Amino acid sequence: MSSVRVELGSRSYDIVIGGGLLRRPQSFAAVASPRASALVVSNTTVAPLYAQALHDSLLPHFARVLRCVLPDGEQYKDWQTLNQVFDTLLEQHCDRRSVLFALGGGVIGDTTGFAAACYMRGVDFVQVPTTLLAQVDSSVGGKTGINHPAGKNMIGAFHQPRLVVADTDTLRSLPRRELQAGLAEVIKHGAIADSGFFEWLEGHVEALLELDPQAVEHAVRRCCEIKAAVVARDETESGTRALLNFGHTFGHAIEAAMGWGSWLHGEAVAAGMVVAAELSVALGSLGREPQQRLLDLLRRAGLPVEVPALPVSRYLELMRVDKKAEAGAVRYVLLEGLGAARLGPASDEQAARALLAHGAQAPQALAGA
Amino acid sequence: MSSVRVELGSRSYDIVIGGGLLRRPQSFAAVASPRASALVVSNTTVAPLYAQALHDSLLPHFARVLRCVLPDGEQYKDWQTLNQVFDTLLEQHCDRRSVLFALGGGVIGDTTGFAAACYMRGVDFVQVPTTLLAQVDSSVGGKTGINHPAGKNMIGAFHQPRLVVADTDTLRSLPRRELQAGLAEVIKHGAIADSGFFEWLEGHVEALLELDPQAVEHAVRRCCEIKAAVVARDETESGTRALLNFGHTFGHAIEAAMGWGSWLHGEAVAAGMVVAAELSVALGSLGREPQQRLLDLLRRAGLPVEVPALPVSRYLELMRVDKKAEAGAVRYVLLEGLGAARLGPASDEQAARALLAHGAQAPQALAGA
Repeated sequence: MSSVRVELGSRSYDIVIGGGLLRRPQSFAAVASPRASALVVSNTTVAPLYAQALHDSLLPHFARVLRCVLPDGEQYKDWQTLNQVFDTLLEQHCDRRSVLFALGGGVIGDTTGFAAACYMRGVDFVQVPTTLLAQVDSSVGGKTGINHPAGKNMIGAFHQPRLVVADTDTLRSLPRRELQAGLAEVIKHGAIADSGFFEWLEGHVEALLELDPQAVEHAVRRCCEIKAAVVARDETESGTRALLNFGHTFGHAIEAAMGWGSWLHGEAVAAGMVVAAELSVALGSLGREPQQRLLDLLRRAGLPVEVPALPVSRYLELMRVDKKAEAGAVRYVLLEGLGAARLGPASDEQAARALLAHGAQAPQALAGA
Repeated sequence: MSSVRVELGSRSYDIVIGGGLLRRPQSFAAVASPRASALVVSNTTVAPLYAQALHDSLLPHFARVLRCVLPDGEQYKDWQTLNQVFDTLLEQHCDRRSVLFALGGGVIGDTTGFAAACYMRGVDFVQVPTTLLAQVDSSVGGKTGINHPAGKNMIGAFHQPRLVVADTDTLRSLPRRELQAGLAEVIKHGAIADSGFFEWLEGHVEALLELDPQAVEHAVRRCCEIKAAVVARDETESGTRALLNFGHTFGHAIEAAMGWGSWLHGEAVAAGMVVAAELSVALGSLGREPQQRLLDLLRRAGLPVEVPALPVSRYLELMRVDKKAEAGAVRYVLLEGLGAARLGPASDEQAARALLAHGAQAPQALAGA
C-alpha cells in the first residue's frame, strides 16, 4: 500500500493506493462521522461489482449508508443525472454533514464531486476511483463538473475530496479498451514531468496491460505524486497546472467532434498528444527522436495515434469554446524533450489554423512511418 | 455616497451605496477589463428600466457588453433559468475572464452568482441590486444558488462578488409591497446586532417607506456594515453567520408551505421573526416589552405578523429539510433583548414540536392584542 499527500493547507488530503482497499473499513476511518449519512454514488456497471463491498466498509463509520445508481456513460454527465443525486439527498433528508462517495470512473467522480460542491453550498466527498484513468488523474485535484451540449466540463467547481481511495484490484474488472485509455494519462504524466518515469513506462507498458500488481501500484503512485505536486502549487489552474492539459486542447475537440462517449477521453488525449508533440517539433522545442519514442509508447499501449479526418475549421470552432481559450486564442502545451513541458504562446485564430493544418496531417504521416 | 468594505483577504470587496450610481461609468471602474466580455443578467421587469443605463456605464470598461433577460419570479429560480445564462455565455464564446453583472433583486443575484460560480469552474461577478432586500442583505456575503422542488437554495455555492453597487434611486421603481418586504431584513439587522439602529428605525420607518434619500442610504449602509462584519468573521456559516438567519427557519417553511413566490421572502421572515421572538420569550431570553417593540415596528412597516394556519406537522416536515437542520434537529436563532442574538439549543423533533405548537399560536394572540 502506498500513500500520497496533496498539500493544500486546511484542505489537504491523502491518496491511498493498493490492492483490496475497498473491502477494508480501515481505509475509510479518516472520514468517519458516526452521526452523519454516507451516500455511495455509482453507475449501473460499477455498482453491481463493488457497491456492496464499499457499503459494508462504510457502515462502521456512519449512521447510515445510502446508495444512488446513475446511468453509465459520458453522455449522462449532465444536469439530469446530477439532479438524481440531489433528489436522493433531499428525499433522504441528508444534512450538511453528509459525505458522498464517488465509486466509479471519471464521469462518476466529476458528477459526484460537483454534486458535493453544490449540495447545501458544499458537503464533503471521497473519491473511490475504479478505472485507471480516474486513479491516475481525474480523482485527484478537485476538478468537478458536468458537460454542456456546447462543451465538456463547462459547468463545474473546484472542490477537493477529503480522501482518495484507489483500490488497484478494481482494475481487474476494467475492459481492456478502458485500461489502454487510462495509460494515455499515465504516459502524459511521464512526458510532461518525469523522464525517468517515461523510461520506466517504456520498460513496463506490457506489465501494466497485464495488470502486474507491483507495476500498477508504482504507476498509479508516481502519477498521483506528479499531479499532487502540480495541484499543490496551482490549485485553480492560474499557471503551471495548465501543463497537465498536454494533449487535451485537441483531445477535447476530438471528443466533441465525434460525439461524447464515442472516443474515450484517454484515446482522444493520446491522439491530442501526437498533435501537440508534432506542434512542439514544428516550433523547435522537441526533437524527432523523443517525438518518435512518445508515438511508439502510445502505440504499444494500444492507443490511437491518428486524428479523425475532419475539416480544420470544425476543430478550430470546438477549441474556441474550450475553457482554456481566451478571446478565441488557444494556448497549446508543448513538450521540451521528454519529461518537461511549457505553455506555448497564445496563438490567434490565424496562427492556430496554420499550426493545426500542419499538425492534423502529421499524425497520419507518422502513423504510416 | 457611502462605501462599506467586506474584508475577506484576497476576496475582499467594496459595497458602494448611493443615488444615481448605475448611470456613472466610474461606479464600475474597479472591475474594468478592457479585453473581456461583460454579461448583464436581469429579468423582464428590471431590464426595461435599467439594463440600458448599466450597459452604457459598462461599455467604457469592457470589450463588449452582452445581455441575458430571465423570467421574473422566485418560481424561476431553478435549473432551467440558470441554464439560460450558461447558454448565452457559451453561444457568445465568453471565456474565463468574463464578468457577470446581476441587475435585479435577490433571485437575480442568487442565480447570476451561482452561474458565475459554476461557469468554467468560476468567473467574476458584480451585484447591482435594485430591491431593498437585495441591497441590505442578499447581494452581500457570497451566498448564491437556486431552489430545488424539495427546498429553497438547496443547490448553490459560496462565491463572493467582486463589487456591489447599490443604487438607491432604483428603489423608486419598487412596488410598495416589495419595499415593505425589504424592511423586514432591515429590522432583522437591528434586532440581532444593533439596539441603536433598532431605535433609529423606530424613528424613521415612515421616512424609509417614503424613500427619503438620506434615511434610505443610512439604513442600507448600516445593514451592509453589520452583514459585512458578520461575513468577515464567518464566511461559510460555520458559526456566528447563522445569527443572520433570525426568523428564517420558520420563514423558509412559510415560503415553502405557501408555494414559492406567494409570500415574499421578507414577509415570511417577518412572520418568522414573530415566532422566533415568541420562542425567545418562552425560553426566557427575551422580555415581553422588547418583543412588543419588534412586533410594533414590523406592523408599522406593513409586514405580516401572523403565520398561515397550517398543521404544525407540515411546518416541521419543511424545517427538517432546511439546510440549517442537522439530522432533523432544528436550531432556532433567539433574541437576547433587542440588538443581540444567539443560537438556541439543538431541539430534537419532539421539542421542536412542542415549541412550535406554542409559537405558532402565539402570533395570532399577539396580533389581536
